[in-house]
Amino acid sequence: MEFLVRADNNLPPDMPEQRRNELRAAERERAVRLREDGTLKRLWRVPGRTGWIGLFEAPDATVLHDALASLPLWPWLDVTVEPLATHPQER
Amino acid sequence: MEFLVRADNNLPPDMPEQRRNELRAAERERAVRLREDGTLKRLWRVPGRTGWIGLFEAPDATVLHDALASLPLWPWLDVTVEPLATHPQER
Amino acid sequence: MEFLVRADNNLPPDMPEQRRNELRAAERERAVRLREDGTLKRLWRVPGRTGWIGLFEAPDATVLHDALASLPLWPWLDVTVEPLATHPQER
Amino acid sequence: MEFLVRADNNLPPDMPEQRRNELRAAERERAVRLREDGTLKRLWRVPGRTGWIGLFEAPDATVLHDALASLPLWPWLDVTVEPLATHPQER
Amino acid sequence: MEFLVRADNNLPPDMPEQRRNELRAAERERAVRLREDGTLKRLWRVPGRTGWIGLFEAPDATVLHDALASLPLWPWLDVTVEPLATHPQER
Amino acid sequence: MEFLVRADNNLPPDMPEQRRNELRAAERERAVRLREDGTLKRLWRVPGRTGWIGLFEAPDATVLHDALASLPLWPWLDVTVEPLATHPQER
Amino acid sequence: MEFLVRADNNLPPDMPEQRRNELRAAERERAVRLREDGTLKRLWRVPGRTGWIGLFEAPDATVLHDALASLPLWPWLDVTVEPLATHPQER
Amino acid sequence: MEFLVRADNNLPPDMPEQRRNELRAAERERAVRLREDGTLKRLWRVPGRTGWIGLFEAPDATVLHDALASLPLWPWLDVTVEPLATHPQER
Amino acid sequence: MEFLVRADNNLPPDMPEQRRNELRAAERERAVRLREDGTLKRLWRVPGRTGWIGLFEAPDATVLHDALASLPLWPWLDVTVEPLATHPQER
Amino acid sequence: MEFLVRADNNLPPDMPEQRRNELRAAERERAVRLREDGTLKRLWRVPGRTGWIGLFEAPDATVLHDALASLPLWPWLDVTVEPLATHPQER
Repeated sequence: MEFLVRADNNLPPDMPEQRRNELRAAERERAVRLREDGTLKRLWRVPGRTGWIGLFEAPDATVLHDALASLPLWPWLDVTVEPLATHPQER
Repeated sequence: MEFLVRADNNLPPDMPEQRRNELRAAERERAVRLREDGTLKRLWRVPGRTGWIGLFEAPDATVLHDALASLPLWPWLDVTVEPLATHPQER
Repeated sequence: MEFLVRADNNLPPDMPEQRRNELRAAERERAVRLREDGTLKRLWRVPGRTGWIGLFEAPDATVLHDALASLPLWPWLDVTVEPLATHPQER
Repeated sequence: MEFLVRADNNLPPDMPEQRRNELRAAERERAVRLREDGTLKRLWRVPGRTGWIGLFEAPDATVLHDALASLPLWPWLDVTVEPLATHPQER
Repeated sequence: MEFLVRADNNLPPDMPEQRRNELRAAERERAVRLREDGTLKRLWRVPGRTGWIGLFEAPDATVLHDALASLPLWPWLDVTVEPLATHPQER
Repeated sequence: MEFLVRADNNLPPDMPEQRRNELRAAERERAVRLREDGTLKRLWRVPGRTGWIGLFEAPDATVLHDALASLPLWPWLDVTVEPLATHPQER
Repeated sequence: MEFLVRADNNLPPDMPEQRRNELRAAERERAVRLREDGTLKRLWRVPGRTGWIGLFEAPDATVLHDALASLPLWPWLDVTVEPLATHPQER
Repeated sequence: MEFLVRADNNLPPDMPEQRRNELRAAERERAVRLREDGTLKRLWRVPGRTGWIGLFEAPDATVLHDALASLPLWPWLDVTVEPLATHPQER
Repeated sequence: MEFLVRADNNLPPDMPEQRRNELRAAERERAVRLREDGTLKRLWRVPGRTGWIGLFEAPDATVLHDALASLPLWPWLDVTVEPLATHPQER
Repeated sequence: MEFLVRADNNLPPDMPEQRRNELRAAERERAVRLREDGTLKRLWRVPGRTGWIGLFEAPDATVLHDALASLPLWPWLDVTVEPLATHPQER
């Protein structure tokens, strides 16, 4: 099942640069894993923001939740998940 | 996977009573089928409104969509679907 | 450039069935053309609604507008278009 | 009477891990009590968030309030309570 | 249990005067009954609107729903119900 | 003239317990005064929140404002005031 | 007591011109009366809309309501009333 | 003074084509006049919608209102006007 | 040209009293100047809040901005400005 | 392609003046570069706020994002980007 996930990133602007870069590197690393197992299919940047929009696939919302919660930046993310149904034209 | 479904019912107040009752009877009939196959698990009335909130279960959002679209009142329903993840305390 | 397009479909419930089916057939036909020229990349159904969410690609918003306005159902669609930037992880 | 309760969890991300785990353990403990006395009937995780949605039953909103206020995490919860009426199909 | 009920009245402006007055008279009549049985405790007019705000008391939301649905104007009312808990200062 | 007053309470969760209790005691004390002079008529707890809804009576919004601003917790309250007109059924 | 009143005008665009002009003339006439008795103090046009914003003065919201309800266009107005308190700098 | 004007176009989809084209032609004609006198400076289409966003210049909101109200489509437009101040970098 | 200006005041509750009073005194002082030069015409307190609503007059939004930005409390104000057109009844 | 960019500036009021002025100077400097390369075409101040509205031009949202992210104040900006299609009257 596919989900459209929207996340706004609330990392405080005054977080020390080193800590910020460590988190970002770990986030990229984790995202690569999620792509490899097919959970993360597409990722876009919301122009002008640190937030992103992603197309995810997971058996259900529980597995999806665990994947999102595994992201190092998760504690600073404001996430909304939208379920997607297959459109008749893509069945 | 479970979904929380919220539907506001926009049947026009001046629809002929007979037509309205036919639709309602068909709706009840259809809901019974959905309960029997486990899709519809709980249904509540939003107090003061003709709308309802329902707990549904379906393999994914596509199957859920087809179930909701099979409701005779569907053309007049304003529906929002919220995906539910299993809470750690209920795993 | 990619765009996330969200459309709610306000076809009146009491539109004659024949007229409705003609419009839907023409809509499917037009969507096939848009897929062939790469404008329409993915299409999902918003579960419980007649609306859809689509991933589109176009040189700019003007070309995208013309594509959306060419849809037979367009006069009844309530459309919002969100620009997407390429995420660093997909550059 | 049943209530649909929605809670967003605003525990600050930089709260010391130990304090956070103590609160969580106490929360789980309290939730078990609330299940035993029939107040808490179902609990779901909002996918992608630390918030939850719960189906509660209580004689009235005052008893419900006291139950919610007894949760160790309550001072950090942003709660909305929605009253549920029994649907004609479940009377 | 007490509830704060808010209702916007969408009677179409071009409804024939006679029909409108019949409905209003029946509404007043019904409201008197609800006051007598203690369901309707206070009623205010939202200044500038045909809507109202009411303080209601009912054993639960199901009984409240039936009371509201018994109002002759109900099909044209856009109602929201808010549960009220007893404040510590009024226990 | 009556007013419906809604207040969300933003006392920070990590405020020292003693300071919090002092403020609450002073708040209760002040509320008693406001009841005695007829300004505060009813007070409800919003279930699940530290906020409240109150029915107030004052000659005008200026007197009401001074009464609300006299509450010890006022600096942490997010208040909205709604004017109430007498309903024809209560004239 | 002063009130800030905001009204959006929903006269249907296809109402016959003559009926529309009659209503407008009656509205102007009524507004003159309200100015004379001090109820209507200032009136502004919301640029680009048929709606208006007005500064009204009335003993209370009930008198204000009756004044607004006396406007010939009232059945087509979507009105919100905001109570105003005297600012310390204008006491 | 410059204004950012946003207009959603609510021409009913089932308006006869001829009437619709007459209105559009008259609208284009009027817009040309407004460009010539410097009132209308830029005009964009909101992608996917029949609405538009425009950069207007007028001595004040009253003159702007009259210009907008002179548009043949104005009765079907849902307009919001935002005032713009000169940015320090453009003084 | 007249503007309706709405400002919510976000001075932190725990700001030292002395600093707060200095700012308030300077604010009053500045407001007097703005009244003298005709920029500030009326000022109301939003009942229950530290925010205010003001009727301002300025040649354009740029002059208005500079006046608002000159207020000592401005860095803590959340301001929205609404342009007002002269109503036909006041031309 | 043109974009309408709206940015609210959340620089904390208590940031040291010197740091604030350094950031502002660097911001002006960067904006000049963006004007020279045609990315930034017009910039307005939202009256009463530190936020701004800008008309930008870029090949796509990705290039636009990089331009916005290059602004020294970007970490404190709350940005929304709206895509603009060319209006038929400006083709």
